[in-house]
Amino acid sequence: MATNIYTVIMAGGIGSRFWPSSRTARPKQFIDILGTGQSLMQMTWDRARHFSAPEQILVLTNQLYEGLVADHLPEILKKNILTEPSRNNTAPCIAYAAFKLYKKDPDAIMVILPSDHLILKESEYEEKIRTAISFVKDKEALLTLGIQPTRPDTGYGYIQFEKKADNDKVLPVQSFKEKPDLRTAQSYLDSGSYLWNAGIFIWKAGDVINGFKKFQPELYALFASGMDLYNTDQEAAFIQQHYKEAPKISIDYALMEKANNVYTVPADIGWSDLGTWASLWDIKEKDEQNNVLISQDRIILTGTDGCIISKEPEKLAVIDGLSDYIVIDQKDVLLIYPKSKEQQIKNVIARLEQDSEANRYL
Amino acid sequence: MATNIYTVIMAGGIGSRFWPSSRTARPKQFIDILGTGQSLMQMTWDRARHFSAPEQILVLTNQLYEGLVADHLPEILKKNILTEPSRNNTAPCIAYAAFKLYKKDPDAIMVILPSDHLILKESEYEEKIRTAISFVKDKEALLTLGIQPTRPDTGYGYIQFEKKADNDKVLPVQSFKEKPDLRTAQSYLDSGSYLWNAGIFIWKAGDVINGFKKFQPELYALFASGMDLYNTDQEAAFIQQHYKEAPKISIDYALMEKANNVYTVPADIGWSDLGTWASLWDIKEKDEQNNVLISQDRIILTGTDGCIISKEPEKLAVIDGLSDYIVIDQKDVLLIYPKSKEQQIKNVIARLEQDSEANRYL
Repeated sequence: MATNIYTVIMAGGIGSRFWPSSRTARPKQFIDILGTGQSLMQMTWDRARHFSAPEQILVLTNQLYEGLVADHLPEILKKNILTEPSRNNTAPCIAYAAFKLYKKDPDAIMVILPSDHLILKESEYEEKIRTAISFVKDKEALLTLGIQPTRPDTGYGYIQFEKKADNDKVLPVQSFKEKPDLRTAQSYLDSGSYLWNAGIFIWKAGDVINGFKKFQPELYALFASGMDLYNTDQEAAFIQQHYKEAPKISIDYALMEKANNVYTVPADIGWSDLGTWASLWDIKEKDEQNNVLISQDRIILTGTDGCIISKEPEKLAVIDGLSDYIVIDQKDVLLIYPKSKEQQIKNVIARLEQDSEANRYL
Repeated sequence: MATNIYTVIMAGGIGSRFWPSSRTARPKQFIDILGTGQSLMQMTWDRARHFSAPEQILVLTNQLYEGLVADHLPEILKKNILTEPSRNNTAPCIAYAAFKLYKKDPDAIMVILPSDHLILKESEYEEKIRTAISFVKDKEALLTLGIQPTRPDTGYGYIQFEKKADNDKVLPVQSFKEKPDLRTAQSYLDSGSYLWNAGIFIWKAGDVINGFKKFQPELYALFASGMDLYNTDQEAAFIQQHYKEAPKISIDYALMEKANNVYTVPADIGWSDLGTWASLWDIKEKDEQNNVLISQDRIILTGTDGCIISKEPEKLAVIDGLSDYIVIDQKDVLLIYPKSKEQQIKNVIARLEQDSEANRYL
């Protein structure tokens, strides 16, 4: 590959969806949620390495997780771990990376990846990214990978594309749609002209900076004011001082929904944002009773089906008569919850947040 | 009380009914099954102390548990912990204690208590034991406490008594009945002349020795042969060598069912043999949803009723949508089992016994 392809891994999330496996101190991207021996962060790094050498991979994360990133990614350059002093959503994060890369290499192409998603079809993924890179190389385009939807999911945003010719691999985007209700989601699925918005972006650093200049002048001005300082020993102090002044806004809202040079590459890459325990159950291999066992050993099940079960490796679990439950046994927390009610786990988390004594379980 | 009242606590059981709370290395009598801060052993000791000074209390236990007995009972005299080199059921155990006490004090009255039962009504219990002691003091009688049945339980043996006068506190026993089927148990309950056999016996040491002499001559001869050695420094060696030669037989079968000088004191003392998780659920205080929580703190329940839940004190348990389950979370074992199927837990234990790697969970 060309040497001007930079991967920007966004790893600032503190999502509590996989509680109690994920915790504030060790969020989802840092856990081996699949039981494969690799964290989602490590899997994302390995995917990045197909296009970028270690010196061309930036990880943006919360200051809290700087040490975890270094632990999980032995290959990473310390100077390439960029810490956000505040949580300002995705647009400032991407603007910061874009300015920094643009200063280093005005031809820099950015591949932006969330750190905590799953991609099962690696070679299809690679092919689509190559297609996207080729497209943006010579064109001022903002490109987002569009995931071929497989069900009327109400948990994702949708991308409406303009179909041109049957063999077009890159399509202009007509509009972005927020999370729909089920009926609308079904109509999107039926129409065949919608894709899931996965938060995977490909563009030149200069082009996204132009986009910010046009549609987010305040954000643009803030990060442009640091141009002399990026990639110097004054960068960290500048970010520490000014990052929190940036508007808290998502890249979708800040730019994608406004620009008219937005394109998508439809991709069937076995993607999941792993947003829920049920989504993990969906994609994992199951036993004959449709149970997903995160660690296989020392589990004795009878009359138990459709469950997802995770425990410490050395612990014995004996379970009878559970259907469609989440059973997560951590050293300090035991969760037994119906899969169908998992959205309510956040109420439990909210309750624990209220209770200073219980904060340590989060 | 008189100073010739000796309590013999039988603590040799290795019952696996409360697995995984009870283990081979720490059976039921040594666990705080009620969550009160006291083991059943300690509660039994406290009851014994109402009638006997520490030097008058013997504990018979398996060699494995000598250290545990000493740990749980700081008041006990080391020489009063009698270890059985083999498990020979209750008759040899009682014969050994009877000979040893008879040699020390020919007027010794023995109160024999299982170490792992529950008695909730302490003052009624005390009163019944006093009645029994008064009765056997001047009469060659084998007396067993009879528990007033409250349901047609098929898990207990029954005592059929001969009713004489309404205000008789001690009644002759007509026969012993083995665990009945439900229909028979119901007929026993309806008749009003049956009691549960609780394994609590009161008699003079000399009288039970006479009983053995008459009905179990082999057992009698074996323990009589050690008469010169009891309460000397040669006792332990004698027991170590010969105890295992004793017939393996229960006191009920060896003596109670055969003798014609058997009496009972009907007692309503809030007794349970705590033989099953369900029996523990029966007797424990419940929350508004009929859940029994062994440790109250750090349990968040929704839509959960009729359960019995036990966990490490510092662990948080979040449980939704379980009805009538046993949830036992130990450091190395998690059990989630329907209360109605608890008899099948023994199949799990049998399976673990077959597997040398899994033995450590027993």
